[in-house]
Amino acid sequence: MEFDYDVCVIGAGSAGMSAYRMAKREGKSACLIENNLYGTKCATYGCMPSKLLIAAAESAHSITKASHFGIKVDDIQVDRNAVMRRVRQERERFVRFVVDDVHDFPEKDKILGRYEFKDDHTLYSKLAERTITAKTFVIATGSTPFIPRVLKPILSEDIVYDTEDFFNLHILPKSVAVIGSGVIGMELGQALSRLGVKTTIIGVRNNIGALKDPDVLERANEIFHEELNLYNDAQVTNAYIIKENYDKKVVVCWNENGTEHSDEFELILNVTGARPNVSGLELVNTSVQLDENKVPVFDLNTLECLRIDEESPNIFVAGDVMRYREILHEAIWEGQHAGYNAANYLKVKNRNIKTPLSVVFTDPQVLMVGQTYRNLKDGEYVIGAIDFTDQGRSRIMLKNKGLLHLYFSIETRLLLGAEMCGPDAEHLGHLFAWAIEKKTTIDEMLEMPFYHPVIEEGVRTACRDAKKSLDIL
Amino acid sequence: MEFDYDVCVIGAGSAGMSAYRMAKREGKSACLIENNLYGTKCATYGCMPSKLLIAAAESAHSITKASHFGIKVDDIQVDRNAVMRRVRQERERFVRFVVDDVHDFPEKDKILGRYEFKDDHTLYSKLAERTITAKTFVIATGSTPFIPRVLKPILSEDIVYDTEDFFNLHILPKSVAVIGSGVIGMELGQALSRLGVKTTIIGVRNNIGALKDPDVLERANEIFHEELNLYNDAQVTNAYIIKENYDKKVVVCWNENGTEHSDEFELILNVTGARPNVSGLELVNTSVQLDENKVPVFDLNTLECLRIDEESPNIFVAGDVMRYREILHEAIWEGQHAGYNAANYLKVKNRNIKTPLSVVFTDPQVLMVGQTYRNLKDGEYVIGAIDFTDQGRSRIMLKNKGLLHLYFSIETRLLLGAEMCGPDAEHLGHLFAWAIEKKTTIDEMLEMPFYHPVIEEGVRTACRDAKKSLDIL
Repeated sequence: MEFDYDVCVIGAGSAGMSAYRMAKREGKSACLIENNLYGTKCATYGCMPSKLLIAAAESAHSITKASHFGIKVDDIQVDRNAVMRRVRQERERFVRFVVDDVHDFPEKDKILGRYEFKDDHTLYSKLAERTITAKTFVIATGSTPFIPRVLKPILSEDIVYDTEDFFNLHILPKSVAVIGSGVIGMELGQALSRLGVKTTIIGVRNNIGALKDPDVLERANEIFHEELNLYNDAQVTNAYIIKENYDKKVVVCWNENGTEHSDEFELILNVTGARPNVSGLELVNTSVQLDENKVPVFDLNTLECLRIDEESPNIFVAGDVMRYREILHEAIWEGQHAGYNAANYLKVKNRNIKTPLSVVFTDPQVLMVGQTYRNLKDGEYVIGAIDFTDQGRSRIMLKNKGLLHLYFSIETRLLLGAEMCGPDAEHLGHLFAWAIEKKTTIDEMLEMPFYHPVIEEGVRTACRDAKKSLDIL
Repeated sequence: MEFDYDVCVIGAGSAGMSAYRMAKREGKSACLIENNLYGTKCATYGCMPSKLLIAAAESAHSITKASHFGIKVDDIQVDRNAVMRRVRQERERFVRFVVDDVHDFPEKDKILGRYEFKDDHTLYSKLAERTITAKTFVIATGSTPFIPRVLKPILSEDIVYDTEDFFNLHILPKSVAVIGSGVIGMELGQALSRLGVKTTIIGVRNNIGALKDPDVLERANEIFHEELNLYNDAQVTNAYIIKENYDKKVVVCWNENGTEHSDEFELILNVTGARPNVSGLELVNTSVQLDENKVPVFDLNTLECLRIDEESPNIFVAGDVMRYREILHEAIWEGQHAGYNAANYLKVKNRNIKTPLSVVFTDPQVLMVGQTYRNLKDGEYVIGAIDFTDQGRSRIMLKNKGLLHLYFSIETRLLLGAEMCGPDAEHLGHLFAWAIEKKTTIDEMLEMPFYHPVIEEGVRTACRDAKKSLDIL
């Protein structure tokens, strides 16, 4: 049977672009379908613009700390236009890199439009009246913000933003209700607050960026509650619009531990999570197994979508549509692997799944790496802790807030993982992830060079703490 | 023969305290002699106060960058008293920890005074009229600032400071000539300049904190010349005092590439290097081999001072007196090893010399780790470079200045070392040092998790660059 392409990749984000590139590198014909604008989530409304906003917030915040160092500042003013101008300008530059990359792909490989499956090898677009056939497919369609039911009645009011809308703003709002205290809610909520935006963060289950270790989570809650209007054990109970003259605001009501709260905001930033973008694909027309949410069931190692029959899957997944480690570098790895397996159909390989690494760019930062608390088995690990309150260098820089827990295997003495809320976690995260990949024991870690005075010395303290527990056993 | 102690440690700094502790841990009787005040160089006038001054400077500097992020600040004023107040207060806290440690040592082990050798087993203090005998000794007497000849005529004028005097100041001076562009000269010179002190740094041979890689050194020179009054290919030709009414100043004259310069300063900070503290020990009375500077010749592996006869050395060295890697964590390792070998006299062990790691806490930071440029052998290595000018995260944070060179072995593909002037080098330094200790190849490094967007992604760029060169070979 003849197909238009060997590999058809649906979705031109970070995962899809990687899958497409890999399929081509494997010598196959391939196409890349995008139903919207080119430009990845990362560059357009993810990693990059959020870090730009955080950089501005950090600048504003550092000024408030200057007096402790003996530096006096008269008046700080946040130029609400200028802040968003830099965020958008720099973001456009990052997006341009992505668009330039896509531009370099051959024209015949790029297809714009919304396509749905007709069968296991056929896509069709009603609007374009076009059919595309391929031997294999990679679904890399990403995810879409979840909208809580309570917000649905006001959706048409142009007052509920997701990150995509938010970074299109030309001026910082005066007040924001951030719904969600996960990674994005905490990052943007703190940044907005530090930029002088009246910000309230409302989340559930005491969540702080997905931390699971109870001690670390408790410390993170202490730290962020001290600084922020944070209600992260709450439930939004109502949200309605009030209009005064030409002014429109939203009143958000929430309940935390039985206490009712409500406040007015210029807008709501809804960051309560995401759902995989699969509904428009009409996967019911394929042999792919779907779960109760109509999402494909896939093999985490091969990235194949399992079939209802016994045949070899010809449809693969990659990136945020998997809802597994929704992080850029994982999306790229997944894209590469799905692209490889799609190109080498019937000779698929298992992935070498790497040490997970996740960082929340709050201040202090939040880190989860390797085996986190929820993966640990009772009796098989010890914890090494360091409280950063009195850690030398952290204190010198007035960054002495936080707690790190390192997990070590009792049997092998290997570093297993870590959870942390504390200074420079993004850098420690790489140190830990690499040490885990290279199978490093606590004894080896204690023999490593630790410069002085650095945050990393706190890691040694945590190792010594864990070693005490190990040596008693 | 009966001795007063098994092990006598001379010098209660970081190395000496480690040596003493180790000798005790090995079950020996030991004493610790200090001829001045308790408190290590690190805490009193080294790592800690310099990092405190740098933290203040960073605070002041970040304010000057705020406008790029959209933050407007009217007036910055450096409170010259308050800056030094925090430096001294926090320094006192760090010194107190050291003094508390010493306080916990048994009284009979602590000896204050200036002692000199009478023979291989005997020390004597004229002032105390006391003799101390020991089976073995550890010389951990540290080093003393070198004073260039041109400064000697004005030494009595109380206008030439070393770091020890400098951190006792109660107010930042208005102007400083920093003589020396090594680690300390660059760190303090930049910090003072950023704190509004009129600062000129005068050094030799284009030195920037000991960098050797010509490209990295050139980039560092570009970066620091842009910001600072830096004359680091110069020679101080004269320094003399001028007095006006009650005011005293120093005029410093220097020559750079044939051009004469001169300027007035409130004080000179002399950081031109150090000499080992051995002259008062009268080592001529022992069997220790002395070099042309009367400094003991020692074995880098065992830390034994070699003898003029064939006997086993009973005198060991540790710390800055060795003038080898004058860095706190090395001093501690040396102290521990010398203490161990002194305690286990005649059963000495070789050290496991670790990956060297050295960081200059300028902005951008300077890093040398592992095999640096001068240790590399032509034809045996490739370089991987990353220019930080367009590195994503660095640019987001406006830290996009610098160059990193990674060195890889052609034969083994192992990471050998790095030189760098760039952002967050202190953290990358640990990543590299640990990777070198764990024998990591370029291929393994490229498979490691790199989060997004982080400075560490620049490391991946450098690895890819090196891999291209390796793959051609």
